[in-house]
Amino acid sequence: MQFTSGYGAEPGAWRLPGANLHSYTDMDQFVRYAQAAERGKIQLLFFADTPALDVDLDGQVPHFAIDPLLVMTSIARETERIGLVSTASTTFNEPYNLARQFKALDVISHGRAGWNAVTTSVPAAAANFGRAVPPRAEKYERAHEVVQIVQALWGSWEKDAWVLDVDGKKFADMDKIQPVGLQGRHVASRGPLPIPPSEQGQPVIFQAGGGEYGLELAGRYADGVYANPYTIEDGRAQRQALRDAAERAGRDPDEVKMFAGFMPAIAASRRAALDRRRFLDESVDLRQRVRYLGTMIGLPLGYEQIDEPLTADQLADAVPSPHDPRSARALQVAREGWTLRDVLAHGVIDYHPVVAGTAADVADHMQEWFEAGACDGFSVAIDGYHDGVDAFVDQVVPLLQERGLFHLDYAGTTLRDHLHAREQYGLDPRVTETAAR
Amino acid sequence: MQFTSGYGAEPGAWRLPGANLHSYTDMDQFVRYAQAAERGKIQLLFFADTPALDVDLDGQVPHFAIDPLLVMTSIARETERIGLVSTASTTFNEPYNLARQFKALDVISHGRAGWNAVTTSVPAAAANFGRAVPPRAEKYERAHEVVQIVQALWGSWEKDAWVLDVDGKKFADMDKIQPVGLQGRHVASRGPLPIPPSEQGQPVIFQAGGGEYGLELAGRYADGVYANPYTIEDGRAQRQALRDAAERAGRDPDEVKMFAGFMPAIAASRRAALDRRRFLDESVDLRQRVRYLGTMIGLPLGYEQIDEPLTADQLADAVPSPHDPRSARALQVAREGWTLRDVLAHGVIDYHPVVAGTAADVADHMQEWFEAGACDGFSVAIDGYHDGVDAFVDQVVPLLQERGLFHLDYAGTTLRDHLHAREQYGLDPRVTETAAR
Ligand SMILES: Cc1cc2nc3c(=O)[nH]c(=O)nc-3n(C[C@H](O)[C@H](O)[C@H](O)COP(=O)(O)O)c2cc1C
Ligand SMILES: Cc1cc2nc3c(=O)[nH]c(=O)nc-3n(C[C@H](O)[C@H](O)[C@H](O)COP(=O)(O)O)c2cc1C
Repeated sequence: MQFTSGYGAEPGAWRLPGANLHSYTDMDQFVRYAQAAERGKIQLLFFADTPALDVDLDGQVPHFAIDPLLVMTSIARETERIGLVSTASTTFNEPYNLARQFKALDVISHGRAGWNAVTTSVPAAAANFGRAVPPRAEKYERAHEVVQIVQALWGSWEKDAWVLDVDGKKFADMDKIQPVGLQGRHVASRGPLPIPPSEQGQPVIFQAGGGEYGLELAGRYADGVYANPYTIEDGRAQRQALRDAAERAGRDPDEVKMFAGFMPAIAASRRAALDRRRFLDESVDLRQRVRYLGTMIGLPLGYEQIDEPLTADQLADAVPSPHDPRSARALQVAREGWTLRDVLAHGVIDYHPVVAGTAADVADHMQEWFEAGACDGFSVAIDGYHDGVDAFVDQVVPLLQERGLFHLDYAGTTLRDHLHAREQYGLDPRVTETAAR
Repeated sequence: MQFTSGYGAEPGAWRLPGANLHSYTDMDQFVRYAQAAERGKIQLLFFADTPALDVDLDGQVPHFAIDPLLVMTSIARETERIGLVSTASTTFNEPYNLARQFKALDVISHGRAGWNAVTTSVPAAAANFGRAVPPRAEKYERAHEVVQIVQALWGSWEKDAWVLDVDGKKFADMDKIQPVGLQGRHVASRGPLPIPPSEQGQPVIFQAGGGEYGLELAGRYADGVYANPYTIEDGRAQRQALRDAAERAGRDPDEVKMFAGFMPAIAASRRAALDRRRFLDESVDLRQRVRYLGTMIGLPLGYEQIDEPLTADQLADAVPSPHDPRSARALQVAREGWTLRDVLAHGVIDYHPVVAGTAADVADHMQEWFEAGACDGFSVAIDGYHDGVDAFVDQVVPLLQERGLFHLDYAGTTLRDHLHAREQYGLDPRVTETAAR
């Protein structure tokens, strides 16, 4: 389940009746949502992040948490099982600092931390560090070095190094706490990191982004990957590409799980779900969306038609654009006779596939994707948290459980357990190091 | 009150009967100590930090917390008043990352955060970032830039920018959220930081270190300074130098408060306090300390004399070394006739002045220093937390309160309130910027 700035995945979530307006800075609120997700046995909470304010706050909430590590620490202290995964940039952080904070979170949470390693592509983020975004090849070369150094630092305190022998006056066995001495072209670190292993050893690695470079990074290091396929075919193709990348890195493709983003709007009926989304759409630029909808289905559309459906003539002329994988669905919804406002309320041009309907509609969508091999799991983007988390947990989860598609309880106590991820401590010995010892 | 790795300020604190052996990684334990300190109305908890393992863990605990920001977040969630101050390096962190994490802590703690800005002088820390320690002038030039950029970023969201107008669909007023666009020689950041003000506006700045460069940094930006004078004269001189530095920076010297480190060992009698410290001394190298004691008082001393006092002949020959300000006290204690083991147990060569005795002895020491103008307050280093925090809070604090030397309750709700620190939001306009806008 994705957690962003505290309101929900929709820009207008903060305005929903009943939402806590101060969710952005209110850790009590984050804790309550996390506890609700944990009640639903959700494997993990995922925080996207970019170190920049990349949205116009006049009408929208920030995209990211005030600080994901500190928010996750707040949540860790008041939950017991749910995994806590955050994005952090390999380009704008030092590996020692990343290694220290993520391992500290892993220890504090008793083995529930994960790191989504991304290279960051936003110029506004680079400007916050007085820099430009480096060329892609350089960014990813650094990313490989950073991930390797971080993992090596995580393993720099051997699992049985912490002796705590009071009579022998031996706090730890320094022979088992060794420098890593890794020197790359972009970054380096001597170590050791002064942090003992957590219950899962060390944090789990995630990756997000796609592209050849991103796939190579994921194929080598990641146990989980965030992806945004719009269609089942898209998902199957992305998943296959990821599995191939893992194989090329000498790994078993089943080690890398792909999570597909999607956004449910859950209500007692499809009409009620669309009305919820129409309220949320008050915070987006519908003029622009109507025009874009036209582009998707090959028609010049204007805002004056927003409360009308497509005419018979328009429907006859419409063709889905080959440039946007969401176009076929947009046209299909339009053919059902909805007004343009309702076509948009279906989420046909959202960043994620949207299901606006009943809990059963949502469960059906997830079942269809999963059984078609379009993903290994989902990254559920709740539109507005204050009632959406409960709706998903109390209405959708039981349906998935009844259908045998979702676990009845956590598989164990650590994030590695929940994901059935392999044991790993320190660097994966199968990975050929780019950074030489 | 100083908080380190979780056991206490003495290297052997982890071995004290009743101590929690896993304090280093146990946030519940940190929270309990913090709550005890808060019961005693202690203004703040201070975390020293260096990003390196700079101690032999065979017999000693780590010097620093697993990660101060994450530990402070854990504490912030389960305390209400006590301030939370951590050290972070200006040399090995990016200003944007520092600004974000400290401001996030400030918001999460409802205005209780402080940042002790140090340049870091340890080669082992530099090696963790693949670097060498830069020359002092360069390190401090960067430090000025970092503090200024951090403070500017803290102020980049005007105090009334967060509008939260649901009907007007206005989340925030983007005209009041502006880039800072600071470019220094070493670091730069565009901003804005996407974090609203806390109850105290922004974190309070501290500094530690001394030296001409450190004083200039403290004089310009700090509201609190950590110092380690060994004697009252030393404290008065350091405090005067600090006040002069503030004046040179165009500030009122009363704005900058100096906190002197000292370590009490509290027991029912002086003998019992010395026995506590003798147990703690099992974790230090007494052979070396006996030799060093000899150097301090101008005598060749050997370990075989450890359980004997100085002889009359030795006392006649002894002279305090002018090279160590602790020497006069060492000789004074030796003249009282204690064995060398007990002389050392008095803490005559510890990093802080030590008072081993009753609560009244400790209160007397604090009163004497304070009334002599040797400091504005204390940075109390509790030798072993598991019983030492309670002893200080329940025995020493009431004495200080009776004597009118310590407040009966917090002055307000924020760290700024507790310290009677000036209001500040964004950069101090009196500071001439080295980083040009
Ligand atoms: C589902 C998903 C989530 C992502 N989350 C983040 C994120 O939180 N922060 C970030 O910087 N990049 C994130 N990315 C990756 C960037 O968008 C990535 O930079 C982009 O895919 C292309 O990057 P490249 O040009 O560096 O290869 C995400 C990508 C996907 C598909
Ligand atoms: C009481 C006190 C506490 C200090 N705490 C720290 C600390 O936690 N971390 C750190 O890197 N430096 C700390 N310092 C500062 C360093 O010791 C400082 O680098 C040293 O005083 C000289 O530094 P310079 O050569 O960079 O001027 C402290 C200094 C004092 C006096």
